Parts: sequence; C-alpha cells; structure tokens
Amino acid sequence: MELRLDQIVARFGGEIVGAGDTVVSHVATLESAGTGDLAFLANPKYRHQLQTTRAAAVIMAGPAVDGLTAAILTPQPYLYYARVAQLINPPPRAEPGIHPSAVVEGDVAATASIGPNVWVGEGSRIGERVVLGANCSIAADVEIGSDSRLAANVAVYSGSRIGARCLLHSGAVIGTDGFGFAREAEGAWVKIPQIGRVLIGDDVEIGAGTTIDRGALGDTVIADGVKLDNQIQVGHNVRIGAHTAMAGCVGIAGSAVIGQRCTVGGGAVILGHLHLADDVNVSAGTLVAKSIPNAGTYSGAVPFLEHGGWLKNFSRLRHLDAMADKIRALEQRLAALEKKK
Amino acid sequence: MELRLDQIVARFGGEIVGAGDTVVSHVATLESAGTGDLAFLANPKYRHQLQTTRAAAVIMAGPAVDGLTAAILTPQPYLYYARVAQLINPPPRAEPGIHPSAVVEGDVAATASIGPNVWVGEGSRIGERVVLGANCSIAADVEIGSDSRLAANVAVYSGSRIGARCLLHSGAVIGTDGFGFAREAEGAWVKIPQIGRVLIGDDVEIGAGTTIDRGALGDTVIADGVKLDNQIQVGHNVRIGAHTAMAGCVGIAGSAVIGQRCTVGGGAVILGHLHLADDVNVSAGTLVAKSIPNAGTYSGAVPFLEHGGWLKNFSRLRHLDAMADKIRALEQRLAALEKKK
Amino acid sequence: MELRLDQIVARFGGEIVGAGDTVVSHVATLESAGTGDLAFLANPKYRHQLQTTRAAAVIMAGPAVDGLTAAILTPQPYLYYARVAQLINPPPRAEPGIHPSAVVEGDVAATASIGPNVWVGEGSRIGERVVLGANCSIAADVEIGSDSRLAANVAVYSGSRIGARCLLHSGAVIGTDGFGFAREAEGAWVKIPQIGRVLIGDDVEIGAGTTIDRGALGDTVIADGVKLDNQIQVGHNVRIGAHTAMAGCVGIAGSAVIGQRCTVGGGAVILGHLHLADDVNVSAGTLVAKSIPNAGTYSGAVPFLEHGGWLKNFSRLRHLDAMADKIRALEQRLAALEKKK
Repeated sequence: MELRLDQIVARFGGEIVGAGDTVVSHVATLESAGTGDLAFLANPKYRHQLQTTRAAAVIMAGPAVDGLTAAILTPQPYLYYARVAQLINPPPRAEPGIHPSAVVEGDVAATASIGPNVWVGEGSRIGERVVLGANCSIAADVEIGSDSRLAANVAVYSGSRIGARCLLHSGAVIGTDGFGFAREAEGAWVKIPQIGRVLIGDDVEIGAGTTIDRGALGDTVIADGVKLDNQIQVGHNVRIGAHTAMAGCVGIAGSAVIGQRCTVGGGAVILGHLHLADDVNVSAGTLVAKSIPNAGTYSGAVPFLEHGGWLKNFSRLRHLDAMADKIRALEQRLAALEKKK
Repeated sequence: MELRLDQIVARFGGEIVGAGDTVVSHVATLESAGTGDLAFLANPKYRHQLQTTRAAAVIMAGPAVDGLTAAILTPQPYLYYARVAQLINPPPRAEPGIHPSAVVEGDVAATASIGPNVWVGEGSRIGERVVLGANCSIAADVEIGSDSRLAANVAVYSGSRIGARCLLHSGAVIGTDGFGFAREAEGAWVKIPQIGRVLIGDDVEIGAGTTIDRGALGDTVIADGVKLDNQIQVGHNVRIGAHTAMAGCVGIAGSAVIGQRCTVGGGAVILGHLHLADDVNVSAGTLVAKSIPNAGTYSGAVPFLEHGGWLKNFSRLRHLDAMADKIRALEQRLAALEKKK
Repeated sequence: MELRLDQIVARFGGEIVGAGDTVVSHVATLESAGTGDLAFLANPKYRHQLQTTRAAAVIMAGPAVDGLTAAILTPQPYLYYARVAQLINPPPRAEPGIHPSAVVEGDVAATASIGPNVWVGEGSRIGERVVLGANCSIAADVEIGSDSRLAANVAVYSGSRIGARCLLHSGAVIGTDGFGFAREAEGAWVKIPQIGRVLIGDDVEIGAGTTIDRGALGDTVIADGVKLDNQIQVGHNVRIGAHTAMAGCVGIAGSAVIGQRCTVGGGAVILGHLHLADDVNVSAGTLVAKSIPNAGTYSGAVPFLEHGGWLKNFSRLRHLDAMADKIRALEQRLAALEKKK
C-alpha cells in the first residue's frame, strides 16, 4: 500500500514538514528504514538516529532536524505511528466460507471464514467476518462477535461469549473449569462443578497459551479493550476492568477483581478474592497478596546479585527479625549508658 | 433436574429444617439465589446474607435462622454442597461413537465418544465411556481408563497411561520429552533420549495448558486423586503423591518427589531432586530450594510496597550482610564501653 | 538394537574394561539396570551403586571397581551416555507421505511425513524428512528445514523460519503477535501491527506450551543449538545466542538480547531491552531487572521458611530502610559516647 504524507495527515491530523507528496509504503525503525519507509521517533534516546536514517519521512513530536527529507509532527508520535501502521498493515484477508474439512454444527455467518479442521459445536453463533484458524475447537453454545479473529488451535468451551473485534492467539483456552474442590476428611478432593461462563467484551486481545477459567457460579468477566499477553492464567470469577493490560506469564487467582486501566508486569501473581482499584500499576514479578484500594504503582520484586553476594546477603533474610531485636537491644543499652552520664 | 430436600438427605445425610418436600433445581450463592435455588453457607462472613437470600433452601452447619424457608444442616456444608452440585450438574452427555472426521488407528471402546478431527494412534486403548474432545491427538500405545474425559485440543505422547475418571483440560500436554542434555566442551548440548513414560492414576484432574514430561529413564508418576490447575509444568521423573493439589502456574523441576495430600500455591517453584513430605503446604509464590522433611506450611514470598517505599527498602537487600556486620561491631563497641564503667 | 561394547568404543572412543563382546540393548540407571542394560555413573554420589548394580556394563570416568562385569572408561561419562542412548533410541520412524485428512496448500518434500488433520498453508515449504504431528497448523509462507520434527498440536504463524534438525513439542506456538500497543489519552490501547518474523536456527529444541512472539519491526531470533524447556515465553524482537539453554516457565520480555551458552533456571524472568553477556548463568526464580555485562552466575531468589518464621522475618522487609537508619543513628550516638571518654 502506497500513501502520501498529505493523505495520512488528512486522516490522522498532524503537521507536515517537507514535501506533502512524499510517498511511503512501509513502516520501519529509524535504524532499519530504507527508501519509501516511514519511521518514527517516540523515545528521545534515539534522537541521534535522525541524523543518519534513510527514512522517507519520520513521525515525531519535536522540531524536525536538518537533513530529514520529511516529517509529520504530532504530540503523540507512537500513537500516531500505531494508527498509520494499522492502515498500512491490515490483518490478512481471509476468504469467506467454511473449509470442507471443518465440522460445523452451529450457525456461521456467510461472511465468516472457517479454517481447515475446525469444529464449531451445536448452538454456537459465529458472527460476520469472524475468522477461525485451523484446528480451532469451538464447543456448543458459544457466541463470537463480528470481526473477531481466532488464530489456529484455540479452544473455547461451551457457553463462552466473545465480543466483537477480539483477537485470540494460538493455544489460548477460554472457559476451562475453575479450580474448585471441597476436601474430604481423609484428604480426597470432591469437584465443585464449574457452571458459570466466560464473558469477554469487545476489542479484547488474548495471547498465546493464555487460559481463562469459567465461573464456578456466576461468570468470569473480561471487559472491553482488555489486552492480555501470552501464558496468562485467569482464575474463575475474576473480573478485569476495561482497558487493563497485562504482560506475559501473569497469574490471577479466583475471584480477584481488577479495576480499569490497570497494568500488570510480566510474571506478577495476584492472589484470590482481592480488589485492585482503577489505574493500579503492578511491577513485573510482584506478588500481590492484599487488596490495593488506591491508584498508583506497586512493586515487590527483589534485586539479583552475583551469586556469592546473593549467598551472603539473602541468607540474612531468615534472620531479619533477630537483627531488629538486636538493634532494639542496642538502643536500650545505649540509652542506659547515655543516662548515666 | 428437580430434587426434593428429603431425596437429597436420603442420599447424602444431614438434617432437614423446614419442609422436606421443598423442590430445588439449581445451586447458587446466597446472594444470587432465586426461586428454586439451593444455596450454601460455608464461610461465616457471609452469614448475614441468610437474612436476605431468596434461596429455596440453604446448606449450612450452624443453627438455621428465622426467615429461612428451609435448610439442610450438616457439619461440612461446602463438601455437602459439592456433592449436591455434582448430582444436579452432571458432566454433559457425549454421544458414543467415533466422529467420521476422526482418524482412529487404535482400539476404542464402543461406549467411548471420539470427537471431530481427533487422532488416536496405533496400539492405543481408549476405555469405556471415555470422551475425547475435538482435535485431541493421542499418539501410539496410550491407555486411557474408563470414564476419563479429555477436553478439546489435548495432546498425549506415546506410551502414556491415564487412569479412570480423569479430566484433562484443553491445551494439556502429557508425555513430552523431559529437558535432559549433556554438554560438550564447547558448550553445545547433546540430547538425552527421554524414554520413560507418564503414569497418571485414577480421579486426576489436569488443567488447561499444563505440561507433564515423560521420564528420562523410569517414569513420571501422578498418583490417584491429584488435582493440577492450569499452566503447571511437571518435569521428568517427578512423583506426586495421592490427593496432592496444586494451583495455577506452579513449576516442578525434574525428579522432585512430592508427598501425599500436599497443597502448592499459585506460581510456586519446586526445584529438582527435592523431597517434600506428606501434608506439606507451600504458599503461593514460594521457591522451594531444599527438601521439606516435615509436614507444615512453608512460605517465601516477599511483600509488595508502593513503588517509592519498595525502592528505598528493597535496595537494602543488597547490603543485608553489611548491616549484620555493623550490628556486630556496635555490639562489641558498646560492650567495651559498658565494661569500662 | 543390540550393540557390543567394542562396537560402541569403535564409534565413540573410550577404554573397555572387561569383555569387549559384552552385548547391551538398553540404557538404564545403575539402580534399575538389569541383564543386557548399559548403565552410567556421572554423579559420584551414586558410586556405591556400582557394588550392587546388575548392569551388563557401566560407562564411567574413574577406575572400574571389582565385581563390575564390564565398563567403558571415558572422561565424560554423561556425554558419552547421551551419545550411546541416542544410538540405541533413535526417534520413532515416521512413514513418509501426507495423511489423507491433512490439508496441504504449500510444498512438502516427498520424504516428509504429514500427520492426520494437519494444515500447511500456501507458500510454505516443508523440508526433507520433516515430521509434522497430528493437528499441527502451519500457516502461510513458513519454512521448516530438513529433519525437523513437530509433535502434535503445534501452531506456527505465517512467515516463520525453522531450521534443520529442530524439535518442537506439543502446544508450542511460534510467531504469535508481540505485545505492542500505544495508549490513547483516555487509556484505550491501539495495536501496533506486529510485522516481523521468528527466525529459528538449526538444532533448536522448543518445549511444550512455549510461545515465541514474532518481531514488531525486525525479527525475533533464536540461534543454533538453543534449548528451551516447556512453558517459556519469548517476547518480540528477543535474540537468544547459540547454545543457550533455559529451564521451564522462564519469561523473557521484548527486545532482550541474551548471549551464547547462557543458562537460565526455571521460573526466572528477564525484563525487556536488557543485554546478557555470553556465558551468563541465571539461577531459578531470579528476576533480571538490569543488564548483565559479564559472564558469571547471578541469583535473586529468596529463601523460604516455616510459615511462622516467614511472617516474623519477611514483614521486616517493609522496614529495612528504617533499620538502616537506626543503625546509622546508633553508630553516631556511640561515637559521641566514645569520644567523651
């Protein structure tokens, strides 16, 4: 796709520096850009690359520098870049229709594209322009809203609801049983049937290998605009507020309620039955063991050390309480000495 | 399914308060229950909801309160609820037979249900009433015991044994190669063939995306009644004792031996070649780096803080040893001063 | 397969003690070995088992002990064992050809084996003797080099390159979108199209459920001989150097660059945009939050304690800074006292 800068600015706003009829056909980094590429400067630490880039034009916030062929000035260059990149790189077109190898027992819109060896169970409704990749398994009574796309090998359990314009990646599992058991006196576990559903809003992205449990009673709810990276585990009856984003490998235990516009860093763990307010940011590797009632950034990861230093320092963690006691005793003895003077 | 309270009590015991011919057809929480719903009170903090619930009857331990329509009294209401909920919500019936799109090279019981696009390899034996969901891949020489159910998109490697009444969720992988390599002088890795098996007992539940490695030599063994949540990794030659339960995202390195009736919290990591006694409880987020010879609860997660407080406090971790040295020096200097008096 | 010790030594070197025509047909541990088994002694702590093993022969480094039937002496017994075990246990033969249930739109070598219900998209090239297990989904424009094997239920996104002699386990996902979004003022996320690729070298092993994101711009690169265990997450534009090995459940955020011959322990997390030098070893459970410019071993996991001890000690972590302040105050007061003398 070829676009002129003036066409881009007509669509997304911003100010052109240089020739408005400059044509771009790809997006690229400042460093790798070549002829016909549109690059962007979002992080000031790459500003020096403006001097050497071969980009046809650069999206940037600040004043353009000498030597640049052309630029689009905008206060939010990364967001602007995202919009142009989407325009230049639309998702691949999928042919409407049902592949002959697919097994379809539910209702599929005529404009949807159902890939090889897909299964769609009885009572399921697959919306307009939905794409189901190869080997997806969609159980009974599932609804998938228009323009949503499932990559290959996604599994959706019965009763799940997926909104419009969602993107689910390979290996994602939606609607699996929550982990609920009652214990017998001798230690054996009796399964609590998991009879709730998973409700996913619009514009949600769910990463590869991410698993979302259905509710035990009641539903697990993922609100509009939520973005979940790969290998995230969402327990039963969790509720995640709109536009919250989580990086890879996060684990969320059952019945946690997470606010809107939160961010959760990679590998963080959120325990069950907690509430996180809106606009909470949890740093990578943090274990959240109690509710967070106020917006803000919260951290709990420990520093790493060269192995010898780690051995010396971290073994002290087992004796922190004794250290505190020693300090208190020193304070008392010192106070006694000082008094005698 | 409609049940009268006296039918339930005839089956599971307990004492009826109110009308024994009260009919219930669903289970629900106290808060969400409506007409015809059977609720339960297991956690005393919800006791106040007894005043306002619209449940037709409540399973509970204590004395019934005024205003409740009916109740079943039992010392273990959650366990009792689990049994009633199972009775009211049996797993979905699957039609016996092999879907025409399935590729079956092994032996399948006539009462088993083999879903769309399933593969069952040569020499495998699928037991009575087993359900294999769509797109499951069962390699050669696998045995699956009667009444076990595999959700869609499960992969089982050759030689694995799965007992009776097991439940495996989507994306689970059983019998993959363990991570075993010898290292050449220049750093390259030479694979150790992984020729053991995975042996899974009866009544085991395995969560979505959970992976269980086959033994290197000898077998990986999951005993009867073990419950594994989603995205757990079990290394080669691990042995997990009966009725042990693990929450999501736990990692267990090779050759760890874990006792019976243990519980492991979400995101915990158990290193290789360790032994955990029976009845050990590991808290969420704990890294178990040495064996635990005695029953009890063990923890190792760190608290989180507002980010500024975290920066100030956690950077001290690199200097704990120096802090301990300073305390010791203070003690010596103070003792010297005290002596002089 | 039956082999004589002299045949083995002719192939791999080493010195025979005892009868060179001793025949072995399986590998086993010293403890479990029976007639016809070849065992190995790599870890000195098992040396006492030499007295009781029933192995036909033992691969070992040290001097052979009395009572052993036969031995092969080599300075690196584990590496030697790996080579013999590979010889005795070659990967299972797969019949060349395309299963009639597979849907193949790309080019497949005549010697390749394409399993049941596999999809191979347009423009993909599957090399000589490649094995694709059941229900694999290979999107468009993928290249897979000769002798690589994909277990069942692997998903490969369009444009990915996989080298020769690789082994990918079930549930692995190659080439999924990286986690890249720009944020609007009100908190909504705008997707950055992920248009790079995943490039995987030769002799790479990728574990079950491991997910590797494609580059945002530019590529994600896994070099020759890398070994990744199960449930590892590799973010977009990560580069992993040759012969680096990572244990299960590791998470690597976007644009991290990891050197050659590194090892990363289970459950470790490496944050984005960091550089790790060659020959860095990261211990299990460590969060790497800054670059590591020098080879060596680095650790950051915390010890665990019996729960009561943990409560007492770890709550002090929130007050480490205050403890340091108290120590400083004590030092000053004590110095003042000492001066007065």
